[in-house]
Amino acid sequence: MRAPASGGATKKPLPDVVAGNGKIYLAIEVKTTTKDKIYIDHPQIDALIEFSDIFGATPYLGMKFKYTKWLFLAPENILKTKNGNYKIEKDYCLEKALELDEICGFDTQVKF
Amino acid sequence: MRAPASGGATKKPLPDVVAGNGKIYLAIEVKTTTKDKIYIDHPQIDALIEFSDIFGATPYLGMKFKYTKWLFLAPENILKTKNGNYKIEKDYCLEKALELDEICGFDTQVKF
Repeated sequence: MRAPASGGATKKPLPDVVAGNGKIYLAIEVKTTTKDKIYIDHPQIDALIEFSDIFGATPYLGMKFKYTKWLFLAPENILKTKNGNYKIEKDYCLEKALELDEICGFDTQVKF
Repeated sequence: MRAPASGGATKKPLPDVVAGNGKIYLAIEVKTTTKDKIYIDHPQIDALIEFSDIFGATPYLGMKFKYTKWLFLAPENILKTKNGNYKIEKDYCLEKALELDEICGFDTQVKF
């Protein structure tokens, strides 16, 4: 289910999407870009984690780069920049991120 | 989390609210009235049940009558009218419905 108001303006820590399949519950913050990098302020990731803790969901950052599938990173795999915010490079994401099937539990492929 | 577009217009079976607390997940269709009766079309209840099955949530109809607290009925406790839709009387609701604490699992009081 998509959140009613996306973006950082809301005071409540709502993720962009909440999803469930009867076994797994996901809270997803979504970013798309035509560039090779995605920047995110740390309050958005903090809010994603806070909501997930309260609701009982696994938090993910969902990313769509040009020519890639949707890719998903757990907050602990998102690299901080010096100023405390987050930057995700497309190459890092292609190497480390999970695909939709994997975060839904349909595929437990381990990435090396 | 509130759904982005409430009401029966959407094709997707989204409830008005999805809530979780790490243990219990709820899908809630919400109705308020200043009258003593609430009418609901059966496709809205069908959609609530369908979403709940897919997502993995317990479905409830959440009702607010004038001078009452929020009251919650499970779909199986909602009475059908002759035409297949649903009608909930305030008195029936006060007798049979659960309160917020009860559907959140904070209180397991049995009603007689």
